[in-house]
Amino acid sequence: MSTSEPFDAVDVIRTKRDQGRLSDEQIDWVIDAYTRGAVADEQMSALAMAILLNGMERSEIARWTAAMIASGERMDFSSLSRPTVDKHSTGGVGDKITLPLAPLVAACGLAVPQLSGRGLGHTGGTLDKLESIPGWRAALSNEEMLAQLEDVGAVICQAGSGLAPADRKLYALRDVTGTVEAIPLIASSIMSKKIAEGTSALVLDVKVGSGAFMKDLDRARELAQTMVALGTDAGVRTTALLTDMSTPLGLTAGNALEVRESVEVLAGGGPADVVELTVALAREMLDAARHPGTAGIDPADLLADGRAMDVWKRMIRAQGGDPDATLPTAAHTETVRAEADGVLTELDALAVGVAAWRLGAGRARKEDVVQAGAGVELHAKPGATVRTGDVLMTLHTDTPDRFARAKDALAGAVRIDPVAASARTSTMVFERIAAD
Amino acid sequence: MSTSEPFDAVDVIRTKRDQGRLSDEQIDWVIDAYTRGAVADEQMSALAMAILLNGMERSEIARWTAAMIASGERMDFSSLSRPTVDKHSTGGVGDKITLPLAPLVAACGLAVPQLSGRGLGHTGGTLDKLESIPGWRAALSNEEMLAQLEDVGAVICQAGSGLAPADRKLYALRDVTGTVEAIPLIASSIMSKKIAEGTSALVLDVKVGSGAFMKDLDRARELAQTMVALGTDAGVRTTALLTDMSTPLGLTAGNALEVRESVEVLAGGGPADVVELTVALAREMLDAARHPGTAGIDPADLLADGRAMDVWKRMIRAQGGDPDATLPTAAHTETVRAEADGVLTELDALAVGVAAWRLGAGRARKEDVVQAGAGVELHAKPGATVRTGDVLMTLHTDTPDRFARAKDALAGAVRIDPVAASARTSTMVFERIAAD
Repeated sequence: MSTSEPFDAVDVIRTKRDQGRLSDEQIDWVIDAYTRGAVADEQMSALAMAILLNGMERSEIARWTAAMIASGERMDFSSLSRPTVDKHSTGGVGDKITLPLAPLVAACGLAVPQLSGRGLGHTGGTLDKLESIPGWRAALSNEEMLAQLEDVGAVICQAGSGLAPADRKLYALRDVTGTVEAIPLIASSIMSKKIAEGTSALVLDVKVGSGAFMKDLDRARELAQTMVALGTDAGVRTTALLTDMSTPLGLTAGNALEVRESVEVLAGGGPADVVELTVALAREMLDAARHPGTAGIDPADLLADGRAMDVWKRMIRAQGGDPDATLPTAAHTETVRAEADGVLTELDALAVGVAAWRLGAGRARKEDVVQAGAGVELHAKPGATVRTGDVLMTLHTDTPDRFARAKDALAGAVRIDPVAASARTSTMVFERIAAD
Repeated sequence: MSTSEPFDAVDVIRTKRDQGRLSDEQIDWVIDAYTRGAVADEQMSALAMAILLNGMERSEIARWTAAMIASGERMDFSSLSRPTVDKHSTGGVGDKITLPLAPLVAACGLAVPQLSGRGLGHTGGTLDKLESIPGWRAALSNEEMLAQLEDVGAVICQAGSGLAPADRKLYALRDVTGTVEAIPLIASSIMSKKIAEGTSALVLDVKVGSGAFMKDLDRARELAQTMVALGTDAGVRTTALLTDMSTPLGLTAGNALEVRESVEVLAGGGPADVVELTVALAREMLDAARHPGTAGIDPADLLADGRAMDVWKRMIRAQGGDPDATLPTAAHTETVRAEADGVLTELDALAVGVAAWRLGAGRARKEDVVQAGAGVELHAKPGATVRTGDVLMTLHTDTPDRFARAKDALAGAVRIDPVAASARTSTMVFERIAAD
């Protein structure tokens, strides 16, 4: 060997390629060496493909996660006067739950640090949504974040670049090499950031269905179990809910459109599915936090009586936003109408997500700019009775040449049957996953 | 899509990752796009790993090979007055067969174009060996090559950079990403160059054993069958021999050492295994060429009567070398002695290859310079009776600090039993593979 590195990247790749177990030392080295550039992108992508196809043992994933955490800084919330609890969603269409949920759980007496990202592809980004509020800013220093958590109890901001830098580099690589879908890599990517962030409890919202990353329940369950085990092993009380993403959450997919709907929920109204999931996740978060001060509190009450809304307004103001400002709207709209009489039995989440993306709500490349007002507004959800000519959706965009491609995406997304083929699932939550 | 490419590399990777068949159009595009840089190294390495783990159908490998051929120029030997036949070995320790074989088959009346490479790792390179002959040069223009083939009948030279450039780029990538061992990629790499070279017949020497790329007979057979099918489908009459590489070929591993041994074979002497394999491959090449002018010729006769040696000398001279010059020798030698009485039952090819490499005969990186005189000389082969203290090997190097690491490589390579455990294989050739 003409190098001073303790391992050879090719040997590490071969180990996993040949279905072996990576040693702790190999994992520590390969993550560190990749972060500093001693393992090349083409080597890491070959390793990622081998991991995707040959899998990893639980202990390997735990070590991989620990190595990614060790690549950067760790945050410390222990100085706060109340316990922290965090939520993470694997992403879905119309998933604005973080917006009402963070102030709601803060109103219950916990501290909720939500380090969020921007959207890429058909699922929106929480920061993109909040940036449609005039004046609101996503970037906070660690000190500002801690101060806001102490004062307001909730913060939704951009993750600092110091947290798990190995993950950021690896995620960008996986995105262009067909290796995003590896469960060990998805789980360690999410959990490395959450553990490094230093939360004491965590609730995972793992989406299942056409609009989600995981299309079927078995793979979603495997991902949830993997992440719950990782969190638990790292001393973070972690549970997961497997929730429905076959159709969009609520009646909106788009940035300002989703903020508007979130505010309706905080005002005690809003679509039943968004309210149901917000309250279910809030209850899980109170459970996970195990804070005596929250005993007997039902989060639903705090949505009804306006206390969650008060925290929302303080949270938005603390980051420079005006919670009472008029939200931007798109310059152009078009409608999509029902083409038959009957019951709406399907409204495909992926198709709506892609349509919203094409209307300008999302980005195809990191450097794209999103339109605040663009997106899809639904006027009916599965289970509704509709008549020919009824407006099913309104499409919003500033650039009307986008309507045609958005409508292409929606071809086949809607199904209307003479009578309902089967009863729609009555609950958003399919399963709850807790530590073994 | 913000690009004008007809495919997205991620979709191509996903197809193979999910065990699908790549379409002809996907294959043509990915090879072309990789060659011109529109598919990145990290994308191609992920695809290579997916190919290694999920395999390719015969028709996919054929298309992949055709696309690599299409990436560069094709040669044309049709103007020659005699038919061409080529040989390719998958590489082994002490494999100097090309040196006596090319002039031998030319002496039989065929044209033998041997486009060869340099060594990397524990197997030597044919060009490195010949460069130990004072004055000999490896680089010829296509015109020089054709003229020498017509005049002498044999040429061993460096492959031009115009032949299958996609393969050169892909091979360098596979070397650093743990994806060398994929049979579809090995087969298409070898065969794309041989088909582009334009030979009308080809004999493959596929090595099996510790010193070979393929350690077991099943994988060697699979590789041989794949290559024979590729050649046959492309109109090249192709057969393969599976041959023994459990112990080094002949009694030398090293550049000048192997030239010396090759000249002994051309002089009608030399180790029995080298002679056996040289003659067996020559017979296969005559068979494959199907040239009426070679009917009834036994290559063994042309080794015995000096006609092969005459061609050798003309071939070396044609490329500037002096076939009668004294070959370089290493400045330092050390011996390895038998530590018991008995029968030598094992002398591991890989260990000897690594020892020769560490002594300076091979290179760890492309830019390394090899020592002409370095290597391992064997004084006994498996089956020989030895006594404690007998010299088993002489190690040669110009840099004596290399002896220690070479001896480390040889630890455990030699086995001496009180009596022979089993009869040693009596032939070098395990199997012959021809088209279905």
